[in-house]
Parts: sequence; C-alpha cells; structure tokens
Amino acid sequence: MATDQKPLVVLAGPIHPAGTELLKTEARVVISEDLSEDGMVAAARDAEAILFRIKPPCTERLMASCPKLKVVGRYGVGLDTVDLPAATRLGIAVVHAPGSNSDSVAEHAIMLMLCAIKHLIPMDRATRKGEWRGQRLRGIGELRGLTLGIIGVGNIGRRVAHLARGFGMRVLGYDPYVPPDELRRREAEPMSGLSTLLSQADIVTCHTPLTDETLHMINDKTIAQM
Amino acid sequence: MATDQKPLVVLAGPIHPAGTELLKTEARVVISEDLSEDGMVAAARDAEAILFRIKPPCTERLMASCPKLKVVGRYGVGLDTVDLPAATRLGIAVVHAPGSNSDSVAEHAIMLMLCAIKHLIPMDRATRKGEWRGQRLRGIGELRGLTLGIIGVGNIGRRVAHLARGFGMRVLGYDPYVPPDELRRREAEPMSGLSTLLSQADIVTCHTPLTDETLHMINDKTIAQM
Repeated sequence: MATDQKPLVVLAGPIHPAGTELLKTEARVVISEDLSEDGMVAAARDAEAILFRIKPPCTERLMASCPKLKVVGRYGVGLDTVDLPAATRLGIAVVHAPGSNSDSVAEHAIMLMLCAIKHLIPMDRATRKGEWRGQRLRGIGELRGLTLGIIGVGNIGRRVAHLARGFGMRVLGYDPYVPPDELRRREAEPMSGLSTLLSQADIVTCHTPLTDETLHMINDKTIAQM
Repeated sequence: MATDQKPLVVLAGPIHPAGTELLKTEARVVISEDLSEDGMVAAARDAEAILFRIKPPCTERLMASCPKLKVVGRYGVGLDTVDLPAATRLGIAVVHAPGSNSDSVAEHAIMLMLCAIKHLIPMDRATRKGEWRGQRLRGIGELRGLTLGIIGVGNIGRRVAHLARGFGMRVLGYDPYVPPDELRRREAEPMSGLSTLLSQADIVTCHTPLTDETLHMINDKTIAQM
C-alpha cells in the first residue's frame, strides 16, 4: 500500500452529497450501507476516521477492531451513541457538530406545540373524512399568553426561547449549567429548580443531551408536578 | 307585549357561554339551532339583532323578513356571508370583530408552513405505521432563511410578519391599501405588485378579506408566477 495515500474515512450510511465531496478532497471515502456492528467492523478495518449518523452504536469493540482509528465523528449533536470512556481509553478523538441542527430542532419543537394546541392531527383526519361538525373546534387554543418551560437552555433551547417570545409566550428556563444572567440573555426567566418550572409551565419542552443525568428525568413524579 | 322588554337578540348557533351571559345582561337571547335560512327567519321574526357565525348567509330576504332588525353582527371578521348592499338599503347596521381572531389565524398560518416544510402529516402517518426508513427524512427543510410573501398585511398579516421574522424569514408584503412606510412598520418589505411578490417568495400566505377583488386572486396564472 502506498504510504502517500489519503486517509480512509468510512461513513456509516450516506450523508449529503456536498459533504461527501468535501471529504473526498482530503480522504478516500467509503460509504458503508451495512449498519450492523459487524458490517462496520468489516468496512472500517483500515479506517482512520468513522462518521456515524445514528447506527450502529460506536462501541468499544467496534473502535478496538479498527487499529488505525484516530477520530470518530457524529453527523449531528448527541454523543449518547458513542462509548466516550472507551474512546478516551483507546486515545480516539470524538467530534460532533453542536449547533448544526439547532434551528431545525427548535422549529420542530414549536411545530409540535402548535399542532398539539390546535389539534392538527385529529383535525386533518376529520377533514379528510369530510367531518365538519362544529364540535371539532372545541378546546382549540393559541400559544400567545401561555407559559413555556424549557429544560436545557443550550444551542437549541435558546432558539426555542426566542421563537416562543415572538409568539408572546412567557418563557421559563431551567439549566443547572447556565448561570441566571446568561439564561436571561437567552430570553428565559431563570428557574432555580425543575419543580419550580414544572409547576408554572403550561407546556414543557426538553432540550438536554441524553446522559445518565437526564435519562428518565421526565417520569411519573415530574409529570405529576405539572 | 310589554314595551319595557329587553330587545331580542338571536344567535345563529351557540357562542362561548361567557358571551351569551354578557348579552343576557342587555337583551333577551335566543339561540337558534336551525341554521337554514327558513329556520333563521322563523327564529328571528321579532329580533332587533342577529349574530351570525358562518351559517346561514345573511341574505336580503332574511333581513327583510325581520321588520324589527336593527343590527347584524358577525362572530368573527369576514363579511363575505353578509349581503352588505342589501343591509345598507334596509338601514341595518353590520358589525364584526376585527382583530378578535388575528393571533389564532396567524399562529395557524405559521403552523401550516412548518407542517408543509417538515412533512408533518406524512411523517405522522408513517410513524404510526412503524415505517422508520431513512428515506422519509429526505427533503425536509426549515423556515429560517426562506422568503415569505404576505398578501394582505392587515390585522392578521402583520402578526404573521412578526412571527415569520422571529423565525429568521425574509418577509415581503403586498397590500394596495397599506402605504409602503406602514408596511415596513408592519415588518414587511413593500412589494409594488402581486407579481413581484410571487416571483420572489418561497412561501405565499393570503390574509385578505373575501371580496370581488380578492376572489380567485390565486389562480393558474398567479401560481405559475411562483
């Protein structure tokens, strides 16, 4: 094998063609369509980098099976699919793309709030069936004037706060990693605890990473506080 | 019949109970469940006022059949269901509630834009069927960065403009009844004509009353200009 060859980058599933083209200027790029762990091990044996979307999970076994592996990338933000302690032990860098999907996710969260308060899905279904009874309009509301509780006011949460303020919502924020002054700059009233937020909010939206700390944070007890 | 009796107000279908209670402090209130024209004529023969939701249309015959009728109200904004020239001839005042539903309609318009660009209905249907193929994410976009064309920048249109600006959209406005400076105050770039707006906008939203001037304003020719 020639020593001046470009490094091998394996993609776990296709990404946007523009991204692939950019990578090709610096690397040999192989797109693996087999998203099982064994499939990735086979495809990435000589890889110096692997880029993951969601599947497969980036396990210790997978990384250890690729002796040349230097860096693991996530095409997105969350790192819950990557075994970070194992990557640290193996000396493999892990990179992701914070902020890359913040606008999309924030818009999505607002869409879900609008759809819930305006009964979009049942209304769409009734309309397609030709059901036009007046009853169907009962209980439909607006976001204006409601109180939104944002749990996790990072790249995504702050954008949700900005959009929600535009709708005339009161916005509360709870994030133990963001100081109160910064929460205010992010357009959210600082809440000292999750319970305080839950008891005041009409709508709650979560924008935290999935970690041991946040897993099952919303459960029967926290729901009962709403 | 006692001359000191409160005036009779007939409602074409029920309204919010709080509204009915308020009316009852000043009037005898009858709610007609029969929303045919003949039903309304029968119920409103002695009425001094009729409050319409959507049905029946407030025709000349209906108004002429109610000799005591002084005022017709619309529980909403649009007056297209009321024969205004006939009301004028008969000396009957027509009132409506401009602004009353502006927030709701503006929120609804933004919801429809979000649902269209994010394929909400097909995605919901696929998810309920358990279809999780990657293909389903193809072609999903965001509002940020798109250009919105608002036709009719009145009570509703200006609120749509404000919300859209919050999403980071460019907002164009066309309204021959609103001067350019006022359009700018309403957060829309003034467009001199409908064609100019249509050729530049990624999304077009109409917030005009239904009149002879606006009927079929969006047609095969205007759609072809988008």
